[in-house]
Amino acid sequence: MSVRNILFIMCDQLRWDYLSCYGHPHLHTPNIDALAARGVRYERAYVQSPVCGPSRMSTYTGRYVHAHGASWNFVPLKAGEMTIGDHLRPYGVKSVLIGKTHMRADTSGMARLGIDPESSIGVRISECGFEPFERDDGIHPYSGHDPAPPYNDYLRKADCPGENPWEEWANAAEGPDGELLSGWFLKYANRPARVPDEHSETPYITSRAMDFIDAAGDQPWVAHVSYIKPHWPYIVPEPYASMYGPEHLLPVKRHEDERRDPHPVYAAMQDHRVSKSFARDEVRERVIPAYMGLIKQIDDQMGRLFAHLEKRGIADETMIVFTSDHGDYLGDHWMGDKDLFHEQAIRVPLIVHDPDPRADATRGSVNTDLVEMIDLAPTFLDVYGGAPVPHVMDGISLRPGLFGEATAKRDHVICEYDYSFQDARVTLQTKARDAWLRMISDGRWKYVIAEGFRPMLFDLENDPDEYHDLGGQPGHEETIARLHEALFCWARQPRQRVTVPDGAIESTFVQEKIAEGGILIGYWDEAELEEAIRKEWHPRFAAANPLIGPTLKKLLRKTDRQETEQ
Amino acid sequence: MSVRNILFIMCDQLRWDYLSCYGHPHLHTPNIDALAARGVRYERAYVQSPVCGPSRMSTYTGRYVHAHGASWNFVPLKAGEMTIGDHLRPYGVKSVLIGKTHMRADTSGMARLGIDPESSIGVRISECGFEPFERDDGIHPYSGHDPAPPYNDYLRKADCPGENPWEEWANAAEGPDGELLSGWFLKYANRPARVPDEHSETPYITSRAMDFIDAAGDQPWVAHVSYIKPHWPYIVPEPYASMYGPEHLLPVKRHEDERRDPHPVYAAMQDHRVSKSFARDEVRERVIPAYMGLIKQIDDQMGRLFAHLEKRGIADETMIVFTSDHGDYLGDHWMGDKDLFHEQAIRVPLIVHDPDPRADATRGSVNTDLVEMIDLAPTFLDVYGGAPVPHVMDGISLRPGLFGEATAKRDHVICEYDYSFQDARVTLQTKARDAWLRMISDGRWKYVIAEGFRPMLFDLENDPDEYHDLGGQPGHEETIARLHEALFCWARQPRQRVTVPDGAIESTFVQEKIAEGGILIGYWDEAELEEAIRKEWHPRFAAANPLIGPTLKKLLRKTDRQETEQ
Repeated sequence: MSVRNILFIMCDQLRWDYLSCYGHPHLHTPNIDALAARGVRYERAYVQSPVCGPSRMSTYTGRYVHAHGASWNFVPLKAGEMTIGDHLRPYGVKSVLIGKTHMRADTSGMARLGIDPESSIGVRISECGFEPFERDDGIHPYSGHDPAPPYNDYLRKADCPGENPWEEWANAAEGPDGELLSGWFLKYANRPARVPDEHSETPYITSRAMDFIDAAGDQPWVAHVSYIKPHWPYIVPEPYASMYGPEHLLPVKRHEDERRDPHPVYAAMQDHRVSKSFARDEVRERVIPAYMGLIKQIDDQMGRLFAHLEKRGIADETMIVFTSDHGDYLGDHWMGDKDLFHEQAIRVPLIVHDPDPRADATRGSVNTDLVEMIDLAPTFLDVYGGAPVPHVMDGISLRPGLFGEATAKRDHVICEYDYSFQDARVTLQTKARDAWLRMISDGRWKYVIAEGFRPMLFDLENDPDEYHDLGGQPGHEETIARLHEALFCWARQPRQRVTVPDGAIESTFVQEKIAEGGILIGYWDEAELEEAIRKEWHPRFAAANPLIGPTLKKLLRKTDRQETEQ
Repeated sequence: MSVRNILFIMCDQLRWDYLSCYGHPHLHTPNIDALAARGVRYERAYVQSPVCGPSRMSTYTGRYVHAHGASWNFVPLKAGEMTIGDHLRPYGVKSVLIGKTHMRADTSGMARLGIDPESSIGVRISECGFEPFERDDGIHPYSGHDPAPPYNDYLRKADCPGENPWEEWANAAEGPDGELLSGWFLKYANRPARVPDEHSETPYITSRAMDFIDAAGDQPWVAHVSYIKPHWPYIVPEPYASMYGPEHLLPVKRHEDERRDPHPVYAAMQDHRVSKSFARDEVRERVIPAYMGLIKQIDDQMGRLFAHLEKRGIADETMIVFTSDHGDYLGDHWMGDKDLFHEQAIRVPLIVHDPDPRADATRGSVNTDLVEMIDLAPTFLDVYGGAPVPHVMDGISLRPGLFGEATAKRDHVICEYDYSFQDARVTLQTKARDAWLRMISDGRWKYVIAEGFRPMLFDLENDPDEYHDLGGQPGHEETIARLHEALFCWARQPRQRVTVPDGAIESTFVQEKIAEGGILIGYWDEAELEEAIRKEWHPRFAAANPLIGPTLKKLLRKTDRQETEQ
């Protein structure tokens, strides 16, 4: 059966290697593994920025960060940027959001354009082009942006009362005397969240996704089911809180060489509070088991969600995409959180199950091509029969590959980071203009341009754990020059001429059309024009344009000779 | 007196060297020269693209073509791109258009954003952010876009009747038997236009500008008085038609070497009809006198317009900017029209008269710095006291320089050209994606990257006429490498993060604000947070944020200790 709907599932901060189908020895994720068995598992999928906002905006627009400009978490995607929802709408597809986008609305842009933020278009612009079935960015601090998220109402009804039930139940544990302990603190990550599993965030979003599916009518849909987890705060309810212990951790990947004269930007990142915390074993030992529990919970919820598709009888017409917006260092490379380009931060799981029988050719296979998250938007467009929009999207459809067809392969992946919002910029006294890192990797090498500093370079073949930055050492000039030029070629790919498709230009003899419209550039006299019309102009335009006959007649000061000749 | 209004005058296709103040020996332009005498004449002003549309969009947005994306004449500037009008509106300035913009409205973008093209915002978006007092793109062919321009109505009332008076009067001459001869044909360029001088296009736009000035109220204004001329069709009424002859032509600048194995893109451009026409001396001898007549007419109209400012008593509060959107090869380099990067195409006159007494320091001077047309928008913003917007505009304000202050000088100028709409792309079988030329010049060297082809290189010191393209020759590796890298540095300047100003980032300790908002990343426990608050956080934020006190109290599970400490 052909694809009617797309279940576009995104986790937040899920590293590629914390699933059993990606090789984790202790964390068993049978439901996600089963999805991989009936789909394609991409072994080398990369995000376009190592933090939520820009990575997601790239995924939703199919464009690199330098094209869409929403370069960090608090940077609004500008009103007018087209997203998945905008691209699919003309094909009758409804794109809805259930969960997180990390979008901040471009209120000043909307004001300038006279768009009411409360109007349906305004709401859509504020939600990355999705219709919000339920927006929930998953973090509701006491003093945060959203004072009354529906999840808090839900918790209150589920016997989890309070001024801010999220903080008091989902993000809190209990001490020995029943006192509340904040989930913000890493120290308490080994304690169960107070909220019962069935009312915690991942099951809640799953239920809301099921609500959407139940209520969806006949219109084809893309449901962006977007989980906040396993993103921090690292805290999970039972039974997941007790499932894993320090004995289930992957060996930490860090090297003393990495602290010896590191690249200045890397040094500043290592100096972030979160990095210093995760450099401590006690932090890793408390946090990672909770991180694993959160993933195990997601896997269970995937089982529930996939079963629901079966139950509704739409499993065979629903494509399922499972991925994440970036990874998590978890103490590897002396780093916490994300913010740089090691595999732990930018490589994510990507599994695509396509129910189309043509995809039987690749079912259960592992794809080792370099792929990027910006490839999803063009894939979705492809699914609904949309013409490619290379003048807008940087991504390339994965679908021919899903059908086992030979496809153009990427020879590199790109990841960008605007660290101007980070403490590293303050430490390094960098101007916001210049606080940019751009990475290119061809799979073998990873090269990073850091404005104002030397580049970084890693050899993934001889140093797969990326312990040795060769960017400051002699002997790699040729590699650096090659990747430097590849990055320049990438930087000059034009993606702002979004108002005219390439095809419209290429299918038209523009200059002839201009002439046929009566604008004659460089013609000496009437005879020269006549000759050009006879010999050069493509009659299809002349035939198609009802204005051209009379125009030419007037220009040529002829009677009806022209018309009788045609 | 300080500046209240800006008269922003743009000619179309006026080469820098066809004014007497720029050294033309036969074409006397006393009114423009007088403006230069009371202002600054920029000797090295460059446009950002050698054709109307993209050059203008760069001028109006203050952004390079690769940033705004409107890369050729029929490419709509996307709804949402900010222009002079948008930047000045918050300062109470009204920006109006009288004449040409070559803007095509982004109708699909407006439809997607729910903007009615007929609404005031829709009209503004359709006119580059200007309020159209009178839009007139100056070319009204029989089968063209605008069937009923106001100018045609005007002509009819002025005893120039007809179905299309523009074609029949402004763009037509008469043959010996009174037959109409079309101004489109170069052969007739030496004949006077049928329209009387006072009703021809340049005086008409001048009159409309004067109408605007007369009707303008107390609100400060920027009036973009935008002439179509001396752009083709090359035809001018008497007395200008008879003023100049072949004896007044500048010697043609072309060299046989330029036709010997030229760069493929240059070869394809030489092969354009208009180039082949202008390679013929009879074309140059008929056309250039008309071109000169059109400029002489502009100069006379400048006299009229400047006198009107005096008469209205606003000359001493009105800044006057006089420039053009690009040049004209006129047969130099075996080229007609524009479309490449020789000085004839991309160097334009730029004269700025600033009535502010602080500008007395530079009055009558010649500025030889490299300047770009994108510098005008930030100059205007500066005039009205607006804070610079380097996250949006690539340009730099010229105003400190007008006051004689030491300013940061450009070390290069950039010009881009998307030739995908030109016959050259068809000839070269280039994909629209790749039909890009990017030029960088440091004043001494001019270097051009042509996607898919070798670069071009000119040495303006040893070859000021640019006859010898060194791009394919050995011996310039170092220069090429340097300019290549400079172009890469330019290409990675971020100008899409338009929704957050640099200053907003740099003035804020973002991570602390996040923490004060209740999002605590990487804190081990309560004690660590307390310590951070005491030692690291900047109290101004804590003090400014009414939410932080209670939040911290809750997070820390403390009583009132925190508050009493502060």
